[in-house]
Amino acid sequence: MLRLYHYWSSVCSQKVRMCLAEKGLDWESRHVDIFAFENYEPAYTALNPKAVVPTLDHEGKVLIGSNTILEYLEDVFPNDTPLRPQDPFARSTMRLWVYNSEELAHWNVNVCSHNLRHAKRMDQRCSHEEQMAAAMKCPNPMIALRLKRRLEVGVSVDEENEAYAKLDCLLDGMEKQLAGGPWIAGSAFTLADIAMAPMVNRIEVLTRPEMIAPVRRPSRTGGSASRHGPAIGPRSRSRIRTPRIQ
Amino acid sequence: MLRLYHYWSSVCSQKVRMCLAEKGLDWESRHVDIFAFENYEPAYTALNPKAVVPTLDHEGKVLIGSNTILEYLEDVFPNDTPLRPQDPFARSTMRLWVYNSEELAHWNVNVCSHNLRHAKRMDQRCSHEEQMAAAMKCPNPMIALRLKRRLEVGVSVDEENEAYAKLDCLLDGMEKQLAGGPWIAGSAFTLADIAMAPMVNRIEVLTRPEMIAPVRRPSRTGGSASRHGPAIGPRSRSRIRTPRIQ
Repeated sequence: MLRLYHYWSSVCSQKVRMCLAEKGLDWESRHVDIFAFENYEPAYTALNPKAVVPTLDHEGKVLIGSNTILEYLEDVFPNDTPLRPQDPFARSTMRLWVYNSEELAHWNVNVCSHNLRHAKRMDQRCSHEEQMAAAMKCPNPMIALRLKRRLEVGVSVDEENEAYAKLDCLLDGMEKQLAGGPWIAGSAFTLADIAMAPMVNRIEVLTRPEMIAPVRRPSRTGGSASRHGPAIGPRSRSRIRTPRIQ
Repeated sequence: MLRLYHYWSSVCSQKVRMCLAEKGLDWESRHVDIFAFENYEPAYTALNPKAVVPTLDHEGKVLIGSNTILEYLEDVFPNDTPLRPQDPFARSTMRLWVYNSEELAHWNVNVCSHNLRHAKRMDQRCSHEEQMAAAMKCPNPMIALRLKRRLEVGVSVDEENEAYAKLDCLLDGMEKQLAGGPWIAGSAFTLADIAMAPMVNRIEVLTRPEMIAPVRRPSRTGGSASRHGPAIGPRSRSRIRTPRIQ
């Protein structure tokens, strides 16, 4: 049995839910409210020492890291809609973009998602002191130190601008890649498309949607002449079931 | 034919050279002097748009991203000393640590390597203006903006302390992992050990070697009773040939 610990709007959770949906696998949901800091509780960090979502429990085997989970699902369920190319070079392109979805996309999307507007929303949910107490409880310094700094000085306009510049460069690269498409790793829909789709979707709802508009990124949206058919997003999104919140 | 573009002391280049050495593969060396900013030259960025080393050219197929290259070598040369476990869960552990070598180790090792002492050494090689001109030439904003900021304000003591705290947490996790060893992913030497070894080696030569001393990290160095035999480092290091600098 597959049990997924996840949060509904977490981009990394979305990656894994999309993979499960594509493969048609049944899974049990454990919803972890990261905005109530449930992911910093000892019961959760015992499973996931990094204190982030998602975590996959496959018959008692506990896996963390969304990219690691994607490849694991492919290793264990290779025949349920294969999502990894057979050709080694296409496979390496897939892995590069699965990696890009973390190093380039996730990190910078996270900065842009946690700007001053977000800070105001968080302040309505719980006090500054409660947020700082939560940060102190988080055992992962990668997350704790970032949260502490954001509580102390926020995400500056410069930091946000830098993150957008990096995302813009990433989207340029993706556009170039999709021009040889129709999918990121070539002719087949793969884990690379799954890893990037939630990032692209998040960029669309951030404060600079123009950077991803069809006029600037025609390949991503299928091109003016729909040369490549469906691009990132629709295929999986239409098939994803609503997670059972528990 | 395998041609590797690399720099002798780059930790990511070391990962790939170690993998090539373990597999006993012949390769041709193209040395890229990253401290002379050769990696920002158009001839190189045409191969590697991220403007970093290493890059692998395998019979005209150009691969970037050290982790991607490691898995590619395993996909293409699976029978030359297999470095990926057959068991899917052990494989996922391997992939988590290959990923950790980038997200947690490389990023923070980079911060600690580029502290004020490093800045002084760089200033002896070329002027501040030359370094800034190089930063402006780099097409990858992930690298260019970081270099620009380091030239403007340096790596602060706070930033260095944070990076060390993160590396310390990573080493705690690795110690725990190796306690079930003898290798990171269990009973066999894998790409995870290859990916982490250069990071550990670099931490040893940074300014806080005590954080990695045997008394604090017994499993990494084989334990007081040498319970696990050789730990990270010696196996590969002894077999790595000197790259042919060209």
